[in-house]
Amino acid sequence: MNITSEEADNLVQDLQRLIRQPSISSKKIGLEKCAALIVKIMHQNGISTRLFRVNDGVGVNRAQPPPLIFGEVKSKSNPSAKTILFYNHYDVQPVEPLSKWIHHPFSGKVESNRIFGRGASDDKGELITRIVAVASLLRQTGDVPCNIKFIIEGEEEIGSTHFKRYLERFHDFFKCDAIMWEFGYVDTKNRPIINLGMKGLLYVEVIVTGPSTDIHSSLAAIVPSPAWRLVKALNTIFDDRSGKISIRGWYSEVQDFTSEELLLISNQPPFDEIEFKEKYNLRKHLVGDRSGNELKKALAGSPTCNISSISAGHAEKNSGIKTVLPSIAKATIDFRLVANMVPEIQFERLKRHFLEFGFNDISIRFIHGLSASRTPFANPFVKLVSESAEATFRQRAIINISSAGSGPMSLLVNAVKAPCIAAGCSYLYSNIHSYNEFARIDLLKVGTNFIMDLIERFGSTTEL
Amino acid sequence: MNITSEEADNLVQDLQRLIRQPSISSKKIGLEKCAALIVKIMHQNGISTRLFRVNDGVGVNRAQPPPLIFGEVKSKSNPSAKTILFYNHYDVQPVEPLSKWIHHPFSGKVESNRIFGRGASDDKGELITRIVAVASLLRQTGDVPCNIKFIIEGEEEIGSTHFKRYLERFHDFFKCDAIMWEFGYVDTKNRPIINLGMKGLLYVEVIVTGPSTDIHSSLAAIVPSPAWRLVKALNTIFDDRSGKISIRGWYSEVQDFTSEELLLISNQPPFDEIEFKEKYNLRKHLVGDRSGNELKKALAGSPTCNISSISAGHAEKNSGIKTVLPSIAKATIDFRLVANMVPEIQFERLKRHFLEFGFNDISIRFIHGLSASRTPFANPFVKLVSESAEATFRQRAIINISSAGSGPMSLLVNAVKAPCIAAGCSYLYSNIHSYNEFARIDLLKVGTNFIMDLIERFGSTTEL
Repeated sequence: MNITSEEADNLVQDLQRLIRQPSISSKKIGLEKCAALIVKIMHQNGISTRLFRVNDGVGVNRAQPPPLIFGEVKSKSNPSAKTILFYNHYDVQPVEPLSKWIHHPFSGKVESNRIFGRGASDDKGELITRIVAVASLLRQTGDVPCNIKFIIEGEEEIGSTHFKRYLERFHDFFKCDAIMWEFGYVDTKNRPIINLGMKGLLYVEVIVTGPSTDIHSSLAAIVPSPAWRLVKALNTIFDDRSGKISIRGWYSEVQDFTSEELLLISNQPPFDEIEFKEKYNLRKHLVGDRSGNELKKALAGSPTCNISSISAGHAEKNSGIKTVLPSIAKATIDFRLVANMVPEIQFERLKRHFLEFGFNDISIRFIHGLSASRTPFANPFVKLVSESAEATFRQRAIINISSAGSGPMSLLVNAVKAPCIAAGCSYLYSNIHSYNEFARIDLLKVGTNFIMDLIERFGSTTEL
Repeated sequence: MNITSEEADNLVQDLQRLIRQPSISSKKIGLEKCAALIVKIMHQNGISTRLFRVNDGVGVNRAQPPPLIFGEVKSKSNPSAKTILFYNHYDVQPVEPLSKWIHHPFSGKVESNRIFGRGASDDKGELITRIVAVASLLRQTGDVPCNIKFIIEGEEEIGSTHFKRYLERFHDFFKCDAIMWEFGYVDTKNRPIINLGMKGLLYVEVIVTGPSTDIHSSLAAIVPSPAWRLVKALNTIFDDRSGKISIRGWYSEVQDFTSEELLLISNQPPFDEIEFKEKYNLRKHLVGDRSGNELKKALAGSPTCNISSISAGHAEKNSGIKTVLPSIAKATIDFRLVANMVPEIQFERLKRHFLEFGFNDISIRFIHGLSASRTPFANPFVKLVSESAEATFRQRAIINISSAGSGPMSLLVNAVKAPCIAAGCSYLYSNIHSYNEFARIDLLKVGTNFIMDLIERFGSTTEL
């Protein structure tokens, strides 16, 4: 079953309405209004909703985090059917630099096959295909063949700050048998890319303090520098040539790929190293001199250690010669974690490492931690989703063991104990998080048909 | 001979006039006006002047660097006498942060024994004592006992950009037999501190580039990071525990202290490590676990390697979690050099080091270089200056082989081939380069008497 052309037109208009309502979580802009608009659109499309709320802090300082939208449609003909849950988010990234946008980021401007605007793909575009797919089934058949739930949160772009609390507080509402994660990509050859998991994350800040103020650098002859201390400490944790993390026990929980996973990787289309290097103007060997399948394996399965930022001393532009010994030196490090690694345990290993190497004068702050999540390839939901994607996109699906990125997938999966897959219809180069984000209208339509097909399959499967 | 109390009053008023004329070289503010005011004050004090100018660039882009003021008074009774040259500068450091000043930085506000304002000590206060000393001798004796020259430049605080060109162009004017450098300190016990030299400087920028833009750090699994590369490269050049620079050949030209210099160091008052650590809130061992005389030796004679700045990735405050792999990583390093080290040669050694260690992807830029300068302790001018200082300050003088800081002293010394000593009357904790800079009025008076005494001794010595 497919959406009608009238429904496709409405989909474009609804996405434009959503884009025109800014909802920037990092700046607390428009979140309540956007949530209200989504509730309205869901109601118009026959989906019942509730706005869940949790509080933050106490007393007069109590803040109100953006609400979580819960949506639900029960199957009339089959009320005891299995339940599929769609996870999405209504918040978006900031839009700066505004000057680089060819159309205003909140215009929803349509130009031939593209709708431009912040959130067009991530994640308002994906969300609208899921709402319209349900609505189209309701309109064309008067029912849905399985139970359907929606979770639409408003803090995904800032680390899903309160998501865990929502999951704890409203746990009983979220019971389901399978989860469709917020996104999925379609590559330049129109092949759907399906991710069976996401990496975890440990995000820390490392701070070294020295003299109480920046001092004249002539005193470097006798005063230890926090900038040097930071360089020396960081140097001990990572070998940037091989890509190996040198912290004792770091890889203890990491498991080798199974033979099934290795087969999956080698069956994927080749990694286009030349295209990749050209895109980012890279003139060096890649990490560990990896090539071919090794690159795909690293993206799906290698823990990483990345310096997100480092700073000390004066950093103003054009400030000329300024010879100070800095008072403070800082770095933020993001470690991507793979299945079975626990952020809190890895953090303890990092702290122990610095102590063992004599860096007891360094302060380390745990900023954010997320576990990795992986649904095994053997889970029948994987077959169901990939067959559905291949039937609607009419292309061989590319199945990744894990996205190279991180997200709160593990929170939801651990809370509801269900398989979770990321598949959708965002064009791979749709500029998400950057300027000139857009969604391809042809893919939005195919993506909606994919969700309809998936729901139909899900309603009739006996394998899950 | 001493200044009269009327002359002392005039000195304070002249210094206030100078402070009230801003002259910030890094912002090109008020330099011409300040030079004109100094010329006026010098004329009023009986010193003849010339404004020297060099041009910079060509055609319409030709910039006009601030003028160099040349001043001269010839001895009438002894025209073939030796010549003493005073080097000073009329430009000052910026005044930010303005909010921290208790009096406006260009107010010249007098509060009991202090004159507040940018330049009060560095270097307008020192300059005025030298002008008034000459004027007082002229007034009281109708003559000066030796020939006197002044060089007053306007770019000292920005690295004396055109000083070398002035020295080449007007070389013949600057002939002299001894040089008094711009500054000299007086410690908390009113002891004059005399420096026989300054360290040199090599200031470089190290840049590593990676992907053409900041990219999502999930790609750290395969993309080499310029931030890591910079950390790894810097790590190889310096051992921050011992304070030793690990670049091959770095110390080749460095000579041990002579037994005479060692005696000089051990005869200095002890380095007050406790006071020093309290002042900067240092809770660590000093570099190389040095203490006692070793600290004095390091300040006077150790080459240093200091990270003035390091930066990569996002560094905005409160920007929360931002996991990027930076496109570029930068550091500026200042190396203090000691006698006989040549900045250009050390730069080549640094470049060779990075190549030998496999960092051929790193770009290094030579930003500024200055050689060290040292007048030997045995030079008779040292005895003359220190005896004069002890006679006027009525305290034992502290003689340093070299200041721990750097300046263009070597340019002038090499151009005119004369001994050069830094001695003056700035209170050691007078907040130079910082907010609430001030000069002590009692020290300005004693400092003027010191210069008068020095000129008298210089006019009658037969040893130089």
